[in-house]
Parts: sequence; structure tokens; C-alpha cells
Amino acid sequence: MSGFTGQHILSVNQFDRSAVEQVFKVADMMLPYAKREKRTQVLDGAILGNLFFEASTRTRVSFGTAFNLLGGEVRETTGMSSSALAKGESLYDTARVLSGYSDIIAMRHPVSGSVAEFAHGSRVPVINGGDGANEHPTQALLDLYTIAKERASQGAGIDHLHIAMIGDLKFGRTVHSLAKMLSLFNKVKFTLISPSELCMPSSVCDTIVNAGHELIITEQLEGIVEADICYQTRIQEERFPSQDEANKYRGKFRLNQQIYTQHFKSQTVIMHPLPRDSRAEANELDNDLNMHPNLAIFRQTDNGVLVRMALFALTLGVADKVSDFDRPVHWFSNKPLGK
Amino acid sequence: MSGFTGQHILSVNQFDRSAVEQVFKVADMMLPYAKREKRTQVLDGAILGNLFFEASTRTRVSFGTAFNLLGGEVRETTGMSSSALAKGESLYDTARVLSGYSDIIAMRHPVSGSVAEFAHGSRVPVINGGDGANEHPTQALLDLYTIAKERASQGAGIDHLHIAMIGDLKFGRTVHSLAKMLSLFNKVKFTLISPSELCMPSSVCDTIVNAGHELIITEQLEGIVEADICYQTRIQEERFPSQDEANKYRGKFRLNQQIYTQHFKSQTVIMHPLPRDSRAEANELDNDLNMHPNLAIFRQTDNGVLVRMALFALTLGVADKVSDFDRPVHWFSNKPLGK
Amino acid sequence: MSGFTGQHILSVNQFDRSAVEQVFKVADMMLPYAKREKRTQVLDGAILGNLFFEASTRTRVSFGTAFNLLGGEVRETTGMSSSALAKGESLYDTARVLSGYSDIIAMRHPVSGSVAEFAHGSRVPVINGGDGANEHPTQALLDLYTIAKERASQGAGIDHLHIAMIGDLKFGRTVHSLAKMLSLFNKVKFTLISPSELCMPSSVCDTIVNAGHELIITEQLEGIVEADICYQTRIQEERFPSQDEANKYRGKFRLNQQIYTQHFKSQTVIMHPLPRDSRAEANELDNDLNMHPNLAIFRQTDNGVLVRMALFALTLGVADKVSDFDRPVHWFSNKPLGK
Repeated sequence: MSGFTGQHILSVNQFDRSAVEQVFKVADMMLPYAKREKRTQVLDGAILGNLFFEASTRTRVSFGTAFNLLGGEVRETTGMSSSALAKGESLYDTARVLSGYSDIIAMRHPVSGSVAEFAHGSRVPVINGGDGANEHPTQALLDLYTIAKERASQGAGIDHLHIAMIGDLKFGRTVHSLAKMLSLFNKVKFTLISPSELCMPSSVCDTIVNAGHELIITEQLEGIVEADICYQTRIQEERFPSQDEANKYRGKFRLNQQIYTQHFKSQTVIMHPLPRDSRAEANELDNDLNMHPNLAIFRQTDNGVLVRMALFALTLGVADKVSDFDRPVHWFSNKPLGK
Repeated sequence: MSGFTGQHILSVNQFDRSAVEQVFKVADMMLPYAKREKRTQVLDGAILGNLFFEASTRTRVSFGTAFNLLGGEVRETTGMSSSALAKGESLYDTARVLSGYSDIIAMRHPVSGSVAEFAHGSRVPVINGGDGANEHPTQALLDLYTIAKERASQGAGIDHLHIAMIGDLKFGRTVHSLAKMLSLFNKVKFTLISPSELCMPSSVCDTIVNAGHELIITEQLEGIVEADICYQTRIQEERFPSQDEANKYRGKFRLNQQIYTQHFKSQTVIMHPLPRDSRAEANELDNDLNMHPNLAIFRQTDNGVLVRMALFALTLGVADKVSDFDRPVHWFSNKPLGK
Repeated sequence: MSGFTGQHILSVNQFDRSAVEQVFKVADMMLPYAKREKRTQVLDGAILGNLFFEASTRTRVSFGTAFNLLGGEVRETTGMSSSALAKGESLYDTARVLSGYSDIIAMRHPVSGSVAEFAHGSRVPVINGGDGANEHPTQALLDLYTIAKERASQGAGIDHLHIAMIGDLKFGRTVHSLAKMLSLFNKVKFTLISPSELCMPSSVCDTIVNAGHELIITEQLEGIVEADICYQTRIQEERFPSQDEANKYRGKFRLNQQIYTQHFKSQTVIMHPLPRDSRAEANELDNDLNMHPNLAIFRQTDNGVLVRMALFALTLGVADKVSDFDRPVHWFSNKPLGK
């Protein structure tokens, strides 16, 4: 487990199947810590620079929690206005300076390519927490890890998976990255369901097809979709050229208990990148599925902590030392995690 | 000390006299840690999610410090704009997600009832740090704890106390909650002094009277008030229908050294929920009392740390294990705390 | 090392040569911890209140990191809006309250004198992290420490140093404080290069001359400047009465590889208080010097951590106990620090 040591994690393109499986193996080891069955102090004294130049409560706290669970400390920066970037400082300078304050950096920034530019000046490993429309590799890894765990609980693997991706497949950074990572595996079947205006970019479709996977493109849910995974995303109606155009599809890509029963098989696992819009007009993923055992959306965010712990452990070279620093947990905990 | 384990702390109405006394007993045990005479690592490895969707420096830092003093880590979120709530995420979803990142949550939110709604989705205990005009139970507990300690230093208890509450008793969430908690004790005398426009709501008065306590309602300080505690609150002049109306009371509910000497007995303890407005025009609680030994306003905020430590220890089930993890303190400390 | 224990650090005027040398001796001891060769837990259980009522990512994170590296926890407050100060609370009250939550406070505030006013109400030591145009003593100390380390690597000390200060010497708080501290040493030569509109204030020049140092004041770089240190600052063109006036000097106080070669000797060390404006129109300190071995600007910020660790250790009375709590570091680190 040494190939990651000292490396930046900037893009899903860095990962081959072997690297993905290495991350997942370490993530599996992290479950007892996340469940508070025990705790580790392997990173006691290490500091994460958690730099969120763009707001993202979920991702920011997930990185911070993952580092705390390994025993480390977190120094956090949020927002652009509080940053020297606003005074004309280059990302190179910011990176040279801030990398002197921590052992590793997690960074989100609204501009595509900015995290890679920052990493160029950094003296410590940088993990991309999302750079605009470009990359968000830890989201792709946690999605893929969730698929692996949900499938494993059904006695299957990622190979031979059938995944339906539904909604806005054009602007959704998440589904692009996930499709690329799934393409590393064998014989995956993709059913892509979206309005034609919001279909998957051809470059991603090419990746899928060139890797030898089966690809079905359609505009509507029809009959039974024999998918193992239904990955639902939000359609933002303002993406359409007119409200009339949007109305044609209104509710067609929504998922609720009735639609689930009508179109999916009983084992189909429901995923969503979150946050979901729970307002009545949102037409996204209804609350009547909240207690459904196949709704994996909150297992996704729980798994995010495990994946980020794994990446920290691997890039800091302690993946095989974590359990050397185990200590018992003394407080009350009753948190169901894992699948 | 197990009745609190795994429970949410949402309202003063959850507390009977026995529960209050249990909290105070644990708070007493926390004093040596707050004074840095020793330190404990009982919560080493635990994470507090400190969610302040509304600004409150004092309460936020007090919760965070209390958790650190028990050995735990704090992951903090401040403001609404940086939250997925702004994108239409339900409090239920936010709670399901964020409760996967911590062992316990302290939360403030501007909307009444929001913290209870959040707690419904949370998989870990939630402590209400203030939900709009509704509840702020840790403030009520720290006020009551302060009364108990001040009284104990005079050889008395909360039973048979005489408390004067002064100022805006209509809109002051603090005095409502404190009056309810005091009603759990025996033979308390309440002297409520406010303009009639800002008098105590009848529901609170009913609670006081129905519990068999003595209640005096008046519009002005007159003669000597034989109160053991003077609980002062701020009058916001914009609450009155007109400036003329406000002028009738201007300065009548202000407290300074001269007014204190004229109207109170020499042992009367002065309290205030803070922050106080120290600007000249504020007419609230003057700085000439800052060095008065009976001014307990800063002992209140100090006590807030003890009470919050106690609630964390109780809800996480470690109240009787705290001293098992004691370690010496090696740095300079000379902080006078306690009464 | 006991003269600092329990003291506030508010101004460079508190320091004589002996105190400066004491800080630097402790800072030297901190290098192995900053390089992650080992770690210390001497402040395990201590809490820093990091109060940044004005934004400053670099200084805020540097203080927080320094405290973490000594084993302590950090509770942070940023911005004015989230503060009770906005509701009319006095700095005295804020200090009385917040000093109950921590063992030491680092504070930045936009108003001159505010940190000293706050310190008056604080029950724990306060370190000034910058109060408006007034003081920023830790910046002056880290600049001077950098000079000492750069000189030591050349076999020399601060005595007999020749420093050139260039740019806006009128409004630059940094150069005023640094000049005062350098004046504590022997036979320093100051070459002050600025437009006459932006020259060093006469009070600072008086300090230099009265201490027996050599002072040269000029408006332009001419011939070879035989300086050991070139301390570059930014000229803000809006400081001039007119754009015509500003144009007269445009580019005259800029530093790049060609100007460096033309005007300085090969050992001259380049310093800058950062952040530097790296936009093309900035005319400040060009990126073509980024890899120059004498560019010390990032060693300055690295040294800031050492100096702040030293101040924390000294004010909390643990400077001679730090290594009693050493523990090994287990994670990957490859951070070149020091000179």
C-alpha cells in the first residue's frame, strides 16, 4: 500500500482498477473506527489544511471528520473573501505558504483546474474536493464504493453490474466521473435515461463503449428497468430553453415509491449524489422512499468518511499502521453504519 | 447517571427537579477541569458537530470548549449560506447526513422547532443551542446553576429564593425558561418588574402560580426590593408603540451602582443573560458595577462551560468515567473560576 | 525562560534584545516539530482562542497550526458580523467572557488599540495578531528571525547587517516594526529606498539614528546596493496624489531577476511581508525569482510558525518542558523547512 504515499489525488483519471481496489480495501478497514467500536491515534499530531474556497458543508465536514477519526487535527479555511487570493495572490504563492502549515491539504475551489494549479506549488499532498465543473474524485470513489458494498451484500461485484443513470446527465459532474470509473470494470451495462437536451456527453459515452460495455440511451422510463443500481440526479428546469420545453418532461424523471415499484425490480438500489431538493415542486426523489431499505443515499455519505479516511491513510503512508494505534472507545455510541 | 444517555436535550420541559440536580452534580465535578487543575481524555476520539446556522459566538465557543475540555474534537459549521439547507435540502436529510459525521451535535437555528425537527432525523444525540424564539435550554440551566452556586456561597439553596426579574419580560426567551425551571423548586418568590407592555406572558405566570410560588407583578422599582437575585434584561425601545411611550420608562429599568444601593440589599446577586449593550444610550447595566463582587454575569458564562460539559458527559454516558482519564496540566494557568 | 509567563504580547516595544534572543532560542528548538521529525504533547488539553475579527488566512492558520503542533486545541472565531461586538457589547465584556473559554488568545481586529483594550479585560494571555495600522508584533519577530537565520547560514549575525527597505515605507506597518526591532542590535546600516511621498516616518528614522545606526535615504535604486537583505514592499499607486505622479515611479521599485542581478550582490536575501500581488500590472516582486535560492519569502511564513510556537510556549510557561512530551511521528513527511 505504498503507491499513494506523498501523491496528490486530483482526478479520477489517476485511478486504474488496481488502485481503486486498494482504496476500497483500506476503506473496509476503516469501518470499525467510523462505527466507534474502537479509535486510532495513528495521525496524532498531523494537521489537515481543509481549504474550502467554495461552500460545501457536507464535503468539508466529511474530510474533517475523516482526519479526526485517524487522530489528526484540522485547520479550516472557508470562503474566498477571507483569502489573500482576493488581493491578487497567485494560487502558487497561496500553496507555497499554506502547505507550510499542514501535513496534507483537502481543497475545494470554484474554478476548474485551480486545485491542480495549487498542487503544483504545494509541498504536501493535495486532495481535490471539487474544482468547479471539472473534477470531484472523492465523490466518484464514494459512489463506486457504495455500489461495491451494496452489490457485495447481494453476493455480487461491480463486474456485470447494470446501472441506470437518470436525470440531468449533461451537467452532472458526478455521473461523468462515476461512468468513467465503472468503465474500469468488466461487462457493465449502462442505461442512460434523460431528456435529449440533457444527455450524457459523447466523450463519456465513447469511454463506456470503447471499454466494451453495453450502452442504452433513452429519453423515458419504460416498462421494467432491470437495473441493479438506479443513480438519480436532479433536473434543474432552468436548463431547458423554455418552460414549455421543461414542462414536457415535468415529473418524468422523478422517483417515488409508486414509480419505483412500477419500473424497478425489488433489489434495485437507489442512489443520489445529494443534496436533494425536498421542496414539493422539486420532482426529484420523494420522501416516501426515506425508509426503503434499498435507499442507499445516506449510506453514500457515511461511506464518504471511510473513503476519505482511506485516501488520507494511503497518501500519508500509514495504511498498514492504523491498527497499531488502536484505543478503546468509552462513550455511548449506537450508530448503524455499513451495509 | 444513565437516564440521559443517548437522549436529545431539546427543551427545559424535559427536566424535573431530579434531572436538574443530576446535571448540577456532574457540573460540579467539572470545575477542576475548567480551572485547568487537571485534564481528562474521557472523550478522546469523539467528535462534536457544532452546527450554528445562526451566529452566536458565545454559545458556539462555549459548546466547543466544553467538548475539548472532555478530550473530544469539534467540527464546526457556521451560517446558513454555506449550508445545503439553502439549496432546498430538508432538515431531515441534513440531520441524516451530518449525524454520520459526529458522535453528538449541538445546534442553533433561527427557526422555532427546527432543532427538534433536525433531531428527528439524527442518529446521534442533539443538544438545542437555541431555536429562534422557542427554546435555549442550556442557557436556562446555566442561569439556574449560577443561582444555585451563588446561593450556596451564602449558605442557602434554590428553595425559598426571592428573585426579581427586570426589564423586557415579554420577549425575553431567557426569563421564560428560567421561571419555568425555578418553578420546579419550593417556595420561590418572583417579583416581576416591567412596563405593562412588556410583562411576563400569562402562561408563564400560570406555571409559577400553579406550582404554589409567590408572584408579585409591578411596573417600577419601588423602595427596597428584598431580592436574593436580580435578573436584569435589556429593554429594546423599539418594542414600544411610540417613542413617547418608551420615554415614560427611560432609565427606569436600568441598573447602576447608585440604583443598586438604593433598591437592593447588600447580598443581592446581579445576573444578566449577556451580551449587554454597553453603549451610553443603552440604559441597561452600567459598567460602574463591573468590579462589584455580587455581579455574577461573567460567572454565568463561566458556568455555561461546566453545564455543557455535564450535558455532554451525561448524554454520552461517561459522567461516572470522567476522572478515570485524568492527566496533569503542565502549563501556566491562573484563571479564577467558580464562586 | 520565565519572564514571559502569563504576559500579553501586544507590541514590539515590549521587547529588548535579550527578550528577542530568548524568543529566537525557543523558536530554534521548535524546528524538529515543524519538520515533523517528532511531535510534542506539552499543551495537550490547552485551548487557544483564535479570534480573527478581521480576515487574515495566513496569520490565523499560522497561529492555529503553531498551537496544534504543541499539542493544543484551537477554537476559532472569524469576522465581525458573527460577534456580539455588533450588538453593542464592549471589548471588555467580550474579553471577560471569551477568556473564560481558553488558556490563551490570539486576536486580530481592524481598530488600532483594540487588542490592548481587549487584553485589559482578559483573564488569560493575549497575543496581538494585528490591530489595524497599529501593531503586528509576531510579523516583526518572524521577519527578524528570518534575517537571523539567513545571516547565520552565511556565518554572520544581525549586528553589522546592511538592510535595504524598498517601496512604500510610509504606510507599511511591517517595515516600521522591523526597523524598530533591528535598532536593538549593533551597527545596522539602513538603506531606505522609496518615493519621497512614501518615505519612512521621521519617528522611525529618529529611532534608527538615536540608536547609533547608519541611515541612507534615497528615492531610487542606483548602482550596486551592497545590502545583505533586500526587504521589498508593495507600492499601491492609489497612494499618490495623481496618476501622473504615480507614473513617475512606475516600475522603479519593482524587483525581478534582471533588476536583482543589476543592483544587488549575489548573496542578497530577498524578503517581502506577503501576500504579494502576482498580477501582471502589480510591479512588485516577479515570479521569475520564484526558484532563486536567496528568495526567503516562503521561509518567512514557515518561520512564522516557529516564532508563534515559541511565544505560546513562553507565555504559557512550558518552553523548557516541550521535549519532555516528545512522541515519534509515523506518517510520511518530506517538507523542507529551515535554512
